Amino acid sequence: MLILMKPDVPREDVEQVKEKIQSLGFRSHEIPGAQRIAIGITGNKGRVDPDLFKSMSGVLDAVPVSKPFKLVSREVKHEDTVVRVGADNIGGRMLTVIAGPCSVESRDQILEIASMLREMGVKFLRGGAFKPRSSPYAFQGLKADGLEFLREAAEKTGMHIVTEVKDTETLSLVAEYADVLQLGARNMYNFSLLEKIGETNKPVLLKRGFSATVEELLMAAEYIVARGNYNVILCERGIRTFETYTRNTLDLNAVPLVKKLSHLPILVDPSHGTGSWELVPPMAQAAVAAGADGLIIEVHPDPEKALSDGFQSLRPDTFRRLMDRLQELAPMMGKSLSLDTSVVTT
Amino acid sequence: MLILMKPDVPREDVEQVKEKIQSLGFRSHEIPGAQRIAIGITGNKGRVDPDLFKSMSGVLDAVPVSKPFKLVSREVKHEDTVVRVGADNIGGRMLTVIAGPCSVESRDQILEIASMLREMGVKFLRGGAFKPRSSPYAFQGLKADGLEFLREAAEKTGMHIVTEVKDTETLSLVAEYADVLQLGARNMYNFSLLEKIGETNKPVLLKRGFSATVEELLMAAEYIVARGNYNVILCERGIRTFETYTRNTLDLNAVPLVKKLSHLPILVDPSHGTGSWELVPPMAQAAVAAGADGLIIEVHPDPEKALSDGFQSLRPDTFRRLMDRLQELAPMMGKSLSLDTSVVTT
Amino acid sequence: MLILMKPDVPREDVEQVKEKIQSLGFRSHEIPGAQRIAIGITGNKGRVDPDLFKSMSGVLDAVPVSKPFKLVSREVKHEDTVVRVGADNIGGRMLTVIAGPCSVESRDQILEIASMLREMGVKFLRGGAFKPRSSPYAFQGLKADGLEFLREAAEKTGMHIVTEVKDTETLSLVAEYADVLQLGARNMYNFSLLEKIGETNKPVLLKRGFSATVEELLMAAEYIVARGNYNVILCERGIRTFETYTRNTLDLNAVPLVKKLSHLPILVDPSHGTGSWELVPPMAQAAVAAGADGLIIEVHPDPEKALSDGFQSLRPDTFRRLMDRLQELAPMMGKSLSLDTSVVTT
Amino acid sequence: MLILMKPDVPREDVEQVKEKIQSLGFRSHEIPGAQRIAIGITGNKGRVDPDLFKSMSGVLDAVPVSKPFKLVSREVKHEDTVVRVGADNIGGRMLTVIAGPCSVESRDQILEIASMLREMGVKFLRGGAFKPRSSPYAFQGLKADGLEFLREAAEKTGMHIVTEVKDTETLSLVAEYADVLQLGARNMYNFSLLEKIGETNKPVLLKRGFSATVEELLMAAEYIVARGNYNVILCERGIRTFETYTRNTLDLNAVPLVKKLSHLPILVDPSHGTGSWELVPPMAQAAVAAGADGLIIEVHPDPEKALSDGFQSLRPDTFRRLMDRLQELAPMMGKSLSLDTSVVTT
Repeated sequence: MLILMKPDVPREDVEQVKEKIQSLGFRSHEIPGAQRIAIGITGNKGRVDPDLFKSMSGVLDAVPVSKPFKLVSREVKHEDTVVRVGADNIGGRMLTVIAGPCSVESRDQILEIASMLREMGVKFLRGGAFKPRSSPYAFQGLKADGLEFLREAAEKTGMHIVTEVKDTETLSLVAEYADVLQLGARNMYNFSLLEKIGETNKPVLLKRGFSATVEELLMAAEYIVARGNYNVILCERGIRTFETYTRNTLDLNAVPLVKKLSHLPILVDPSHGTGSWELVPPMAQAAVAAGADGLIIEVHPDPEKALSDGFQSLRPDTFRRLMDRLQELAPMMGKSLSLDTSVVTT
Repeated sequence: MLILMKPDVPREDVEQVKEKIQSLGFRSHEIPGAQRIAIGITGNKGRVDPDLFKSMSGVLDAVPVSKPFKLVSREVKHEDTVVRVGADNIGGRMLTVIAGPCSVESRDQILEIASMLREMGVKFLRGGAFKPRSSPYAFQGLKADGLEFLREAAEKTGMHIVTEVKDTETLSLVAEYADVLQLGARNMYNFSLLEKIGETNKPVLLKRGFSATVEELLMAAEYIVARGNYNVILCERGIRTFETYTRNTLDLNAVPLVKKLSHLPILVDPSHGTGSWELVPPMAQAAVAAGADGLIIEVHPDPEKALSDGFQSLRPDTFRRLMDRLQELAPMMGKSLSLDTSVVTT
Repeated sequence: MLILMKPDVPREDVEQVKEKIQSLGFRSHEIPGAQRIAIGITGNKGRVDPDLFKSMSGVLDAVPVSKPFKLVSREVKHEDTVVRVGADNIGGRMLTVIAGPCSVESRDQILEIASMLREMGVKFLRGGAFKPRSSPYAFQGLKADGLEFLREAAEKTGMHIVTEVKDTETLSLVAEYADVLQLGARNMYNFSLLEKIGETNKPVLLKRGFSATVEELLMAAEYIVARGNYNVILCERGIRTFETYTRNTLDLNAVPLVKKLSHLPILVDPSHGTGSWELVPPMAQAAVAAGADGLIIEVHPDPEKALSDGFQSLRPDTFRRLMDRLQELAPMMGKSLSLDTSVVTT
Repeated sequence: MLILMKPDVPREDVEQVKEKIQSLGFRSHEIPGAQRIAIGITGNKGRVDPDLFKSMSGVLDAVPVSKPFKLVSREVKHEDTVVRVGADNIGGRMLTVIAGPCSVESRDQILEIASMLREMGVKFLRGGAFKPRSSPYAFQGLKADGLEFLREAAEKTGMHIVTEVKDTETLSLVAEYADVLQLGARNMYNFSLLEKIGETNKPVLLKRGFSATVEELLMAAEYIVARGNYNVILCERGIRTFETYTRNTLDLNAVPLVKKLSHLPILVDPSHGTGSWELVPPMAQAAVAAGADGLIIEVHPDPEKALSDGFQSLRPDTFRRLMDRLQELAPMMGKSLSLDTSVVTT
């Protein structure tokens, strides 16, 4: 159920509606918009009668929401959500590029890549410190050391750090170092972790599970938002199909679909999504042309030597040519490529 | 196995290689290129010894081809294949748009749509006369009458006709009326039909089966080309996955993948690929940005009244806006949108 | 729509209902049952008004059928269909075993296998003469010669021949030699071939397409039955999923599902369904325990030397042990294993 | 790498091999077998040279293990693992039945069901207290209260409790009440939880993720075993495919495949696997005939009123008939149905 308030109603009308909701045993969620305020009702105490609200002062309408997701729904909030990270925005008219290696492998490696990317204007640095891996014997990341190296890179370059949080145990540690928490595909159904992230106010890049429907992705976002954290950025990263030439099948249909169903921004990860560096530039362009709010791309100065996923990493020169392409493409989509080409003195 | 000839060798060197191949019980396929001639060897008589050819006059090299497809492989022919339809080209630097209704429903309907599309510059008219349907009780098309109406539309507008061929029985009839034969997704594994089409010289739009891998699509093309018909245009039209919000999952990864593996042109069908008209414009743009050679799009003046697939058809005004977008996007991809905006007097 | 007649009505009541149906522009299908006659109405002229029939003499009820398939539906005919092949039955209380090599490779090979299987009591011999193959360069079968060898094997052993029909062109040839036509997975959507088979009266083993839903399988059967051929035996043979350890994922859920939805018999092909001979015996047992009416199993005296699919063929001794197992299992499922252990003198 | 010791070697030979492994920076895992001891080597420090061990006293051979999973592999331990729960065994010659409602809904409900199942001889009671749900607004279980009710049911009936652990936070609480921890499909990739469970000694029922390959399931088990907990029971519960008639596609191929690849026991959950109570009995029988070590089945006295998943729960009488069937089927598979029909006085 969603209560739509009339434009410019006095604050006390809003408060009365919220009190009414609580008195019925539900939770209220105020959703501010440019034109009017909406109030979402959540809770598992059964159906609410819309008539209880329609007659209240300042209420325009009380509408049952037909989708299983509510707070993340475009029905509830028409305007695009813009997530603020430091002085930068993700979503809206921005086309954001997040780049970096799959894993932080050493202090030197991450500082070198960060400085190289920063020179190209990239503002968001990715790099895994805690790596969930299918095999217990595979490299699991540099952990706390990796976070330190990322923070040092951030301080040297002014970049924002995007890094994965793997479990509730390390959430507060990772949140201390990261500007944007990344929640990996394998954790999209980890509801306890979603809830815990919902209790922070950190921006979170929520990756679609590789066999999750778009509806399930939105439900996972709903878990976070329902706890009060609206800073959710969705991310399409490829689904599992019968096709074997590509590691995953990057599902760009998810981009216009999410745009239709939800107000949250959506990025695309063509590196994991295809698993092959040769497919990254064309699919990155395609993602932008489909309406994505940005890209997260693996870049490595020496892909052959990467400790994980080297075959899907772009070399710096290929990445630079892609940025030139996107510079041209972004305005056609009504977007501005979020690169900072001002000189940095460190 | 593939025999690469040296540049500018005398014709008799080529003929001697071909005779050798035949004397060994195999078939030879001459593949002309801008720089040199290559000769493919096919047949199921086991492996051929490369040394039998390496010492022959005019032969540069004899290379085993590692992929199961040969004649359609980029290894065999490096340059893009361009398929000629009347005075127009599909592939190469052209961005082709094929548009029209799912089915020919009446003479008036197809003439009206054709004239409307022709005014917008569209050169290729689609429309099904023979419709393969899951249910024996569903509308199966106007059949021979539908072909007559399409031909009349072609004569009135100068457009090329793209229409589906459903079986070997009606192949010669359809081939008489069509400029481009369309082979539907359900027939991609119909090897007898592929062979029969291979024996004509008609351009054919070969749609990927909805559960076919890219390799299987290329093998289906190989069936046609192996019989001598090189006028094959591939088409991605959505695959079957677990996602239920979209009718199919349009797999744009297939576009750069096909471009890497094969010299054949590839179009994209976002109408069947998504099954939802709202997703058609963004996915059409994405297809072009991924490197597709063109699009096949369902357009209907009155989608609600269409006898089949109305929900995935664009209205004329939405289609026109998409063409404007593509006009802008094509040059960025090194392509020229194939629209003819000259005045037509009929 | 389905017209249910009262028990024991005079023949003229039935005829009057059928005339009425035809006068409305539809086709009538008489469906005899043990207790009463039902009459199915098919055609694509829109909805029929049940009241037009309810008042007619001898009519018990006129019920709209809710599924897209009608004539094959359990709603329309409650009793299990039993397909007669010579003196043998498939379906009902019979557990049928069809065995033999993937392909007929030579006269000696098929005669040897047939005689060996016949000694074990097997009554149905499989073997492909026309083989649809993904590659145009792969072995396509011995064709007409293969059919001759199969027929000779049949005459020597008294076995029934099950062999694949690949296209409409060779249908009448194959139908001359085969006791049961096999329609392969790749042809399940070949509606023209389904219709042509529907016009014969031959028993047909209709294999599920590897990405076909159970509903689509039943619709394919409906194509055949709608043309008058009720001798349809369904076959589950594995679907395409993300799992890569097995060639296909044998979907045994299809067995109880088909039993619930349809009156047609259903067999299971664990050889293609798993693609690995080691999985064949356990999955064959599982198929029977799930309620299948029989099995089609690849057996080869020397799997390593098979021209196709050797890795999924059972050796004779493994097959024999499986038969012993099924002999024990069949009665538990209310079935009798259809083996003929009488002595054959040829 | 796996070190195979000769039969009956002195203990000090074993210890010396283990010391050598540790000195190289790896972990050693002693794997006792009926005939001989094997020692697994794990760690991510690169490849080990087999020759370092082959010359050591008591060593029969040092073999590289070809699969990505090691400790759970049949190559490493040939004999079936039998997991002990109280006085009962899971695996080996036992056919185990775990039954109960999807969720614990109230004290009365669970006591009633437990007593009913106990009378039928069932020894393992399932019931969810912590329920991971796609929607944050759905019923999430009775939590700690639910555990209390389960424990009371266990004490009254002598049954073992199988209940889901949802996250690391509640692991120690759940482990206090449960006899077997259930790890749900959505948590199969939750590596932190797998590791924590690996540090307990509790038997764990590890469910296959609905889009996990069999190899990934075995890797998840490897995570647990690598930490020292060998009490792992695998569970097939249906995978996500294109088929829409069934909620999931129960993949029985996984049963013989796991039996071939691993020594761990595997159960099957036909309730979630099909999502439809009508398919549960045939698929339960099929699972046993495919070689499963047991079943986990939802039973509810009043399915219509269940708070979750009622449509897939068996009524008590249907469950009882299934048990009768399995009683007959088990011996054919060399198993003994683990029911205790002794009288209970509480």
